[in-house]
Amino acid sequence: MNFNQTHIAAMEKRYRTTFINSLPGYKSLHMLGTINEKGISNLGLFNSIFHVGANPALLGMVFRPEGNDQDSLANIIVNKEYTLNNVLPHYFKQAHQSSARFPSGISEFEPCGFHEFYLDPFKAPFVAQASIKIGLQPRELIDISLNNTKIVIGEIVHVLMEDGIVGNDGYVDHLKAGTVTVAGLDSYFTTEPLGRLPYAKFV
Amino acid sequence: MNFNQTHIAAMEKRYRTTFINSLPGYKSLHMLGTINEKGISNLGLFNSIFHVGANPALLGMVFRPEGNDQDSLANIIVNKEYTLNNVLPHYFKQAHQSSARFPSGISEFEPCGFHEFYLDPFKAPFVAQASIKIGLQPRELIDISLNNTKIVIGEIVHVLMEDGIVGNDGYVDHLKAGTVTVAGLDSYFTTEPLGRLPYAKFV
Repeated sequence: MNFNQTHIAAMEKRYRTTFINSLPGYKSLHMLGTINEKGISNLGLFNSIFHVGANPALLGMVFRPEGNDQDSLANIIVNKEYTLNNVLPHYFKQAHQSSARFPSGISEFEPCGFHEFYLDPFKAPFVAQASIKIGLQPRELIDISLNNTKIVIGEIVHVLMEDGIVGNDGYVDHLKAGTVTVAGLDSYFTTEPLGRLPYAKFV
Repeated sequence: MNFNQTHIAAMEKRYRTTFINSLPGYKSLHMLGTINEKGISNLGLFNSIFHVGANPALLGMVFRPEGNDQDSLANIIVNKEYTLNNVLPHYFKQAHQSSARFPSGISEFEPCGFHEFYLDPFKAPFVAQASIKIGLQPRELIDISLNNTKIVIGEIVHVLMEDGIVGNDGYVDHLKAGTVTVAGLDSYFTTEPLGRLPYAKFV
């Protein structure tokens, strides 16, 4: 089954959104916690988080030009802090609900069943239930003129996790953490290990 | 267990690389196929692919400033074409081997056990064995001055996949495709479905 650029352009809008979002496979899924200048928290669901570098420790993520993403982005720009929180199987439906278009000024935390956790003086709220909580500060904001999205690159300044998740070599065990992954915008998965491989060498 | 910016900066280099790479969870895993101006193919393993938009259909990915990534990036800049190919359980070890530092000018395809597949006149090689093959053209090259990485944003111009993988609504079924995901740089996983949820609405 082959699709080219013309086929993709001719797809019905919702079909294309589903197709392109699910095409590249399993993605890094997080709830983004932010807060506005009035102290109202905001929670959003994101699957576009990517590794940029380990030293300094940098993660990137994409913000759409419309809807919930703009509230979150405005909070990051004002407060210079945000959090990424993993999703576990027992609350993946609540996490999905945080992707609904809540009106600006209404926090998604309480209606979706999540508790805010604060690490004073870091202002952005973590999700208390998450087994891995990452606190970041934005370092670079990139405009993608192709489609008016923006990429925020942030530096990791806090990592909070339950004991026993990090191995002796620094490996974060997402089976122990219970981390869920996503394909497309709405299909959630746990994982089964295939294997961990040694550093690949040219021989 | 809490780590802050100072703890992260003080980590031993290899520990930090493992820790930060595995921290954000499961990632979109692909083999990148390119070709140079002499017709020598190149295959690399990437886990930084992210969704940028559906219309036009755009995917982003990050290139490190050193090593194999630079060969791949040079090929993309010269030829304006590249491919992303999913990894299946029966060849994940071969895919991992393509991340070794092969000398420039030696193709990773044959030594790693992969066959090149060409869709004339598209110049970049697909991985014949992959059940989902994506052909792209670069649209934007972004310099990340923070750590000298580069982001390439490409438009999807070809999608080749086996029959039966795409649903009536456009959903690409990665269970049927057999797509593997990765955590960190070396831990590979298959998935188990938790559930597909309806579009979330604010009520």
